[in-house]
Amino acid sequence: MTTATLSTISKSPVTGVEYEIPASKDDIAGIDAFVALHPGKKVVIVQGLGFVGSVMGLVVANALTEEYAVIGIDLPTPASYWKIRSINEGVFPIIASDPKIDEYYQKALAKKNYYATYDSHAYSKADVIVVDINLDVKKQSAANKDLEGYSVDLTPFKKAIEAIGTNCKEDVLVLVETTVPPGTAQKIVRPMLEECLVKRGLSAENIKVGHSYERVMPGPKYIDSIQNFYRVFAGTDEKSARAVETFLRTVIRTDEYPLTKLGNTNATEMAKVLENSFRAMNIAFMVEWSRFAEEAGVDIYEVVNAIRMRPTHKNIMLPGLGVGGYCLTKDPLLASWARMNLFGSEEKLTQSEKGVHINDKMPVYAFEFLQTQYNGSLEGKKVLLLGVSYLNDVGDTRYTPVEGFYDQFEAAGCAITLHDPHVKYWEEKDMWINQQLDELLEQSYDVIVITTGHKDYRNNTALIEKIKQQAACWIYDTIGVLSSEEINSLSERHTVKVIGRGDL
Amino acid sequence: MTTATLSTISKSPVTGVEYEIPASKDDIAGIDAFVALHPGKKVVIVQGLGFVGSVMGLVVANALTEEYAVIGIDLPTPASYWKIRSINEGVFPIIASDPKIDEYYQKALAKKNYYATYDSHAYSKADVIVVDINLDVKKQSAANKDLEGYSVDLTPFKKAIEAIGTNCKEDVLVLVETTVPPGTAQKIVRPMLEECLVKRGLSAENIKVGHSYERVMPGPKYIDSIQNFYRVFAGTDEKSARAVETFLRTVIRTDEYPLTKLGNTNATEMAKVLENSFRAMNIAFMVEWSRFAEEAGVDIYEVVNAIRMRPTHKNIMLPGLGVGGYCLTKDPLLASWARMNLFGSEEKLTQSEKGVHINDKMPVYAFEFLQTQYNGSLEGKKVLLLGVSYLNDVGDTRYTPVEGFYDQFEAAGCAITLHDPHVKYWEEKDMWINQQLDELLEQSYDVIVITTGHKDYRNNTALIEKIKQQAACWIYDTIGVLSSEEINSLSERHTVKVIGRGDL
Repeated sequence: MTTATLSTISKSPVTGVEYEIPASKDDIAGIDAFVALHPGKKVVIVQGLGFVGSVMGLVVANALTEEYAVIGIDLPTPASYWKIRSINEGVFPIIASDPKIDEYYQKALAKKNYYATYDSHAYSKADVIVVDINLDVKKQSAANKDLEGYSVDLTPFKKAIEAIGTNCKEDVLVLVETTVPPGTAQKIVRPMLEECLVKRGLSAENIKVGHSYERVMPGPKYIDSIQNFYRVFAGTDEKSARAVETFLRTVIRTDEYPLTKLGNTNATEMAKVLENSFRAMNIAFMVEWSRFAEEAGVDIYEVVNAIRMRPTHKNIMLPGLGVGGYCLTKDPLLASWARMNLFGSEEKLTQSEKGVHINDKMPVYAFEFLQTQYNGSLEGKKVLLLGVSYLNDVGDTRYTPVEGFYDQFEAAGCAITLHDPHVKYWEEKDMWINQQLDELLEQSYDVIVITTGHKDYRNNTALIEKIKQQAACWIYDTIGVLSSEEINSLSERHTVKVIGRGDL
Repeated sequence: MTTATLSTISKSPVTGVEYEIPASKDDIAGIDAFVALHPGKKVVIVQGLGFVGSVMGLVVANALTEEYAVIGIDLPTPASYWKIRSINEGVFPIIASDPKIDEYYQKALAKKNYYATYDSHAYSKADVIVVDINLDVKKQSAANKDLEGYSVDLTPFKKAIEAIGTNCKEDVLVLVETTVPPGTAQKIVRPMLEECLVKRGLSAENIKVGHSYERVMPGPKYIDSIQNFYRVFAGTDEKSARAVETFLRTVIRTDEYPLTKLGNTNATEMAKVLENSFRAMNIAFMVEWSRFAEEAGVDIYEVVNAIRMRPTHKNIMLPGLGVGGYCLTKDPLLASWARMNLFGSEEKLTQSEKGVHINDKMPVYAFEFLQTQYNGSLEGKKVLLLGVSYLNDVGDTRYTPVEGFYDQFEAAGCAITLHDPHVKYWEEKDMWINQQLDELLEQSYDVIVITTGHKDYRNNTALIEKIKQQAACWIYDTIGVLSSEEINSLSERHTVKVIGRGDL
């Protein structure tokens, strides 16, 4: 692709269809027609059609106790425009193993109550606006081995809030679901919306702003992770809190999963980044101990299993190639940033920040370990990476540690082959993945790395047999997928190394 | 006391009796007479009569499937000599709420199978020697606000191992229970013992050295925490591992709590410090987030309760005055030290070390917070500290964070009153504690600090009423003992502050 076409074409990774991005950003007719189809129904807008927003839209379109007209909004950019078209054309923009996704989408198609657009005019129709856009942290790249720097730029997020404020009704409920730096709803979203309303000559007194974070897990329970799970919420004032509660009760099974109301939105925003920081920091903790275990000839897996017998230690983690996904890789930094920049503290959240940096360095360490096995140069080596997703049994490549790992092999001049049973298309790399593992193993490799703990790679006798037939090579298990028996059997011909398992 | 008497007198904090430490260190007659009393029985020696060893001795004296003759050994020093005398005179040297302690001790008295001595001659009689001595880390004091330095000195530990080696039988089993830097059994204990045996002209081939860590919890389940709990063990060779297993099966209820055998002693040693580092680091994590919560007007308790609804987050901790006890305050440092000094790594366990330092600084932060409420000077203020123990509902003052907290009030020129329902005598400070809370509250205070989360301070209406009757004062709850209702009720007259609960 040339740069020229890049900016006007948006290609669906689901269907491969290429859409021309329209020059005019006007969809007033489409929006008005959709709203006219649903007289008397409240209009709910989901802002952002990513992993959370697009599915949240589905859940709201299939609310439990109320019929809503749902509009999904995203930007007319190459990365997002195809999602808008896809939703309107009958192809859901996310491939997921959860059968409820298709079930809910078919129901919404039948009811014609889920429309997508890029035109901010839609905000003028909304009774509720659910904010599900991204708020990213910019980090140092793996090329810079330090990896400790980062920055938070609120500009795109503020622009999205401004788009709401310049169009919305004065009594709309804006429910932020985005993971934001604690303090955002109270110190940024609400004041911005009030200012916009006042500028438009409207009253700022009736606006309602709340925060409630999702705990979406892409995978086989995608819908349930929204609809059948505990929710924490708060409002920027009591009126907002009541409005959030009323709305959530219509879409979430709150009889089985009671809502938890917190004292203020700082608390809900903090809860979200705190729970993710807890995980990230506990993984980082194990990254360091795994290295120590290797040095001391200790098998960290048997140690952790022994420790987990204590109920107080059940949540101790296991080592891996690092950390991926949209949350654990950035939320601790959002929190630390907020502490200093929104609340004026002179102190970081040192444990939490350090945790992210340790995790980010894990793929660097893993690559360098392999490199030392080849006297510092992997040039020309044939490498097979088993797994692209950051999460077992799911095709989610967002911020996968495999990316930084892959980049290093590429920079070192390796010929890299990728496999992942759950990833057909690696969006971040614009790359199609060969999913025929048997076929891939017909070729020979110098290094085979298990990079994701998919079930397909566990206790897979056929896979082990295939690998055994390879000429002598390096097998590097970064997440403890191989059993002791498999390691022994592979070791007859190959050199096998498991992260966190030292040899005495 | 003058320095002269200090060195020859050992006073029991249990009975107040003062013992003259004998000039001669010979107890051959006593040891031989005890062993002669138990013909045919194996002799088990417990080295170290502290919180672990003295009770481990009791458990072995009441073993499940074998009758042992048990000898406890400690040093003839002011700190320890009284324990030896006490055990032999019918007064168990530890006050504990667990009724099994007295039950087991009375049985041992009746069987006459638990003797205590200071003479290394005893090691020559032993079939099994259980090492339960301390291995301490020297840290910076609270007076030095940095608190980041520490050192590990193995000299006393090595001396104790040498005492075994110069006396023991060549086929003895030495079972290390002490929490040691990973690598100690294999790299220090076994080589030292072998060298001693060879020097004595004996064979070094039959010595058995293993490691199995206890998970002793002083308190109402003291005995059960040894006898009815999971155990992890390993040997420095296969023969040692078998000997450890055979011995443990005779004393621990392994039918209900199966033993876990690990690959080598580095692994068991690592498991112990890893599980404690996990806790210490998770507490440090919450220390930082509690501070952030205060800055952001968030109640960390409601946030943590909301997060704990997720099974993956059940082990998230709560804030407090810091961390105490013998394990969490030093084990992460032992591990980091071992990584660098026994395994030659150039890297620390940064997360774990940092965790200890963050925890150590918590009482400094708590004190300084109070000080700022009085314009930087607490001189002459009357302060009541509720709780001396580091652990709820237990009288354990080892490395309690209350100590550093107390020291700062003292240095600031405060008049300090202490209360703890479980601590009659504060050993580290050589101080008797008034346990009559009603009486103590007859006096008036400027500051009342809840320093330990004892049940006695929770939901105690009478206590709250008494405090309400005080003239206006500062009430500082460092561990979330007060309920919202209690805070409201106390706030009518007093200034109430809870660590981790911010006011918006």
